[in-house]
Amino acid sequence: MTSPTSPTSLTSTAGTPRRVVVVGGVAGGMSAAARLRRLDETAHVVVLEQGEHVSFANCGLPYHLSGEIERREALLLHTPETLRASLDLDVRTGHRVTAVDPASREVVVESAAGTARIGYDALILAPGAVAVRPPVDGLDHPSVHTLRTVPDVDALRAVVDRLAAQRTAGDERARAVVVGAGFIGLEAVEALVARGLQVHLVELADHVLPPLDAELAPLLSDELAAHGVDLHLGVSATSVGDDGVGAVVTLSDGTRLPADLVVVNVGVRPATQLARDAGLDLGPTGAIRVDADQRTSDPHIWAVGDAVEVQHAVTGLAGPVPLAGPANRQGRRAADAICGHRTTPQAPVLGTAIVRVFGLTAATTGANQATLRREGVPHEVVHLHAGHHAGYFPGAETLHLVASFAPDGRLLGAQGVGRAGVDKRIDVLATALRAGFTADDLAELELAYAPPYGSAKDPVNMLGFVAQNALDGTMPQWQAADLDEALAHTLVLDVRSAKEFADGHVPGALNVPHTELRTRFAEVRDAAGGRPISVHCASGMRSYLATRILRGGGLDARNLSGGWFTLRAVHPHLTTA
Amino acid sequence: MTSPTSPTSLTSTAGTPRRVVVVGGVAGGMSAAARLRRLDETAHVVVLEQGEHVSFANCGLPYHLSGEIERREALLLHTPETLRASLDLDVRTGHRVTAVDPASREVVVESAAGTARIGYDALILAPGAVAVRPPVDGLDHPSVHTLRTVPDVDALRAVVDRLAAQRTAGDERARAVVVGAGFIGLEAVEALVARGLQVHLVELADHVLPPLDAELAPLLSDELAAHGVDLHLGVSATSVGDDGVGAVVTLSDGTRLPADLVVVNVGVRPATQLARDAGLDLGPTGAIRVDADQRTSDPHIWAVGDAVEVQHAVTGLAGPVPLAGPANRQGRRAADAICGHRTTPQAPVLGTAIVRVFGLTAATTGANQATLRREGVPHEVVHLHAGHHAGYFPGAETLHLVASFAPDGRLLGAQGVGRAGVDKRIDVLATALRAGFTADDLAELELAYAPPYGSAKDPVNMLGFVAQNALDGTMPQWQAADLDEALAHTLVLDVRSAKEFADGHVPGALNVPHTELRTRFAEVRDAAGGRPISVHCASGMRSYLATRILRGGGLDARNLSGGWFTLRAVHPHLTTA
Repeated sequence: MTSPTSPTSLTSTAGTPRRVVVVGGVAGGMSAAARLRRLDETAHVVVLEQGEHVSFANCGLPYHLSGEIERREALLLHTPETLRASLDLDVRTGHRVTAVDPASREVVVESAAGTARIGYDALILAPGAVAVRPPVDGLDHPSVHTLRTVPDVDALRAVVDRLAAQRTAGDERARAVVVGAGFIGLEAVEALVARGLQVHLVELADHVLPPLDAELAPLLSDELAAHGVDLHLGVSATSVGDDGVGAVVTLSDGTRLPADLVVVNVGVRPATQLARDAGLDLGPTGAIRVDADQRTSDPHIWAVGDAVEVQHAVTGLAGPVPLAGPANRQGRRAADAICGHRTTPQAPVLGTAIVRVFGLTAATTGANQATLRREGVPHEVVHLHAGHHAGYFPGAETLHLVASFAPDGRLLGAQGVGRAGVDKRIDVLATALRAGFTADDLAELELAYAPPYGSAKDPVNMLGFVAQNALDGTMPQWQAADLDEALAHTLVLDVRSAKEFADGHVPGALNVPHTELRTRFAEVRDAAGGRPISVHCASGMRSYLATRILRGGGLDARNLSGGWFTLRAVHPHLTTA
Repeated sequence: MTSPTSPTSLTSTAGTPRRVVVVGGVAGGMSAAARLRRLDETAHVVVLEQGEHVSFANCGLPYHLSGEIERREALLLHTPETLRASLDLDVRTGHRVTAVDPASREVVVESAAGTARIGYDALILAPGAVAVRPPVDGLDHPSVHTLRTVPDVDALRAVVDRLAAQRTAGDERARAVVVGAGFIGLEAVEALVARGLQVHLVELADHVLPPLDAELAPLLSDELAAHGVDLHLGVSATSVGDDGVGAVVTLSDGTRLPADLVVVNVGVRPATQLARDAGLDLGPTGAIRVDADQRTSDPHIWAVGDAVEVQHAVTGLAGPVPLAGPANRQGRRAADAICGHRTTPQAPVLGTAIVRVFGLTAATTGANQATLRREGVPHEVVHLHAGHHAGYFPGAETLHLVASFAPDGRLLGAQGVGRAGVDKRIDVLATALRAGFTADDLAELELAYAPPYGSAKDPVNMLGFVAQNALDGTMPQWQAADLDEALAHTLVLDVRSAKEFADGHVPGALNVPHTELRTRFAEVRDAAGGRPISVHCASGMRSYLATRILRGGGLDARNLSGGWFTLRAVHPHLTTA
């Protein structure tokens, strides 16, 4: 690959070192600065960071709040001094860039020393994102916090230390309200519970972790409830008041939650004021538009990280994606381009993300069902509940996977929730997505198998097998969301055992265990009376066999994706018999 | 995909069910039988198994020996009765097929009931593999066992139970000799140690787990030694005698090992006598030759599993690969072909495999270095020692990865050893191999990152980054095996701290910590005196920075792949200062 950039315009004249200014000293910006130095020993690289810290572990903040990362210093991966020693970088914290002058190639920077102008041959903007401030009255209440920076976590720890001490002393007041059940919100909840606080979690969407498909979210809700978290779903916080003792959060349904601590994390938006003022092109979502080499509309300015627009691999939609991995790679790419080094093709973003919620892991890659529906992308959804390793080996945990496939078999997205092995499968599926793999390819993947690690037919292979059967007509599917239609127009056939049926079932379903289906075929045929048959079992495996028996006998049978387990998640009223 | 087979010749005339005979009722054979039934409700499917058990968990046998899988029944995943009930299969254990008559389309089968002939429209051979019997005198000694089947493990457990009881009673004699340090041999060692036996492990190759690259094997040797296992590498067992009390194993170096138990697992070979006698084409390695649909040279006979020849994805070499995953998929494919169902393209085999050795995991996918050297495939090797998750999050374990890349960047193979996260990375790399990914693609993979699970720059991304730098000339490498040449013709420069250097170093190396390299540049230049500079640090990261500083100053520097850690593994005499 040869870079389309013309490095000559940026290489200074003979003997004069290249001057590079980087605005923002965390993930993307610091990756760019480090790569620049490694590629160009003579360049003068200045990193301007408005905060007190550079290159800190922002993804580690919730775990410092919980105490799991005990030492604050562990979060500070580098300091200006260590970066000077190993990479000869000129890193200046407490330096805020207030303007960019593209014409003179200078930035205006304010610091304790006053205002200065710094010239550049190449400028890299890595301003990151800022927390979205939701429309809630009273957000200035002193009990309201957010969790984005080292100072944020310092402040939160001080409050939590005090509350934990009060609670130890017998004071029942140690209540927290967390607004926003996204990735960081859930990590904050986990941390606050670990510190002994009573936590209320408020989420506007109808399920926790909104990027997750709805049928997986109840697993997280159950885990949160099992750890004493009070959930308030489908409601918003409308105001934060004060009752003389502490804060009171009022929700849109009228609930009033007294709180000693309120943590608000409802998302981020790109920090693009500087780019906008400099006249750089922004995309429709307000993020900075860049080319394949991270170059902005100004030939001397690059941009990386949470503030830039990227293309989503599955939907093709453009927008910002606030993830550390892509930010680091963008920083590297910008440095390569500036130095005239071979740049690697920028891969569209998959949005791969993961979160620990107490004992569970939830992860996603590619497009979720809500996005595919919204964008009108035809897709077949497959649900799987499988052991994370061989079932005959002790300790197998159930792994819940959902994957979507295009009609031609191409994988579009996947999600997983479980107590073990989720991260592995989502990483394999993220790799498969990047490769453009189909259900056939997943079926043929050759993954590492020994009983402690997986199965001869790994859950990822199984997703491929099930999708093949669903897409080629071997096993037509129905989905849990279709239950009303199934009850109205088809025979619902439950092929679990009589005992399982007695413990809870769909009202109106016929129960014929799958092992009796061959001998009781006529009974089922007569009950169907010409209608299609909507088969289900607990997870989808026995009902697959049943579907094949019925179809082999000439009946129009289809299999419930995910079985009773997914049905109950989508229709909670079915939980009791 | 449309199958190239002509199903019409196998579909019986109107109304007559298709007759299929499957020889062998474990992984591949049983997968074929089950898929056949699911695709064809009317077929008559007979499974003939010479042993007592079908569909048993052969990969679980060592864990039943150790007691980790306590219940023997857990290994027996299905019985003829359960297979009859759910899949209407006619499964006959204790039935040995002694001949195939392709002309009359019949098999000759012997059982307790005598000899019979069974006709078929389609025959699937899944005979598996048989243990290789090494050239050792006295292998008929009653103390000699192997570990391939349920009866094998039953016999072993009886011996081990007795020995463990003797040991508990104070008898020091409870000694085992395991011959063969491959995957199953290592699992057997782990099991015997868990049961309290003193274990000697004998391996002809110069390192344990011969498929593993030599520089990773010392990690396993150290783990085995830490658990009290006595290693005998580079020697063979020549005879098993008897000293009147028990067996005595004599090794090729003259060592005599008294033993109460000898377990021999030196590999397997395809069980192809039946196919050979039937006149089917065999490949050059003696395995059964099949087409893309698993069909043999006889149009009515298919073959699957350990006995068939497959093509290796990286080397293109043909040969048998005894792995459960490929066997299962081959069974499925044969059934699809017989039923005229769409078959999926057969992917060449990667040889992905994994083993637990006490607290360590070792895994491999694709071609190892020994194979690439033997086949003359040009390749660049990259070593990485990285945390299995973010270093600032507690509990990060070092993951040791080795990967080989073609000059154009294509991944050729990868291996890993460590206490956590090895299985995930090897599965991602196996998926990347299948996709034909390059170092650039690995660098751009978007894997799930939160501190408990990985790093923003995952070890797999890092392999890509390092390989990019090595291949595009940014960071030329030298390898641990080149140490003598480096000492003879270059300046060996150790850029670790003075403390690390004092704790052990290459005799003759110059020590300049990487942070002092810019100020002591002239000293290094003068010491090199025009020679190239062979830089190293502990793992390869600081020496990468040093290499860039030196090259930025016009010197010919190269970086040691894997650093001091890999150097010590290859040159054990360097361990002490």
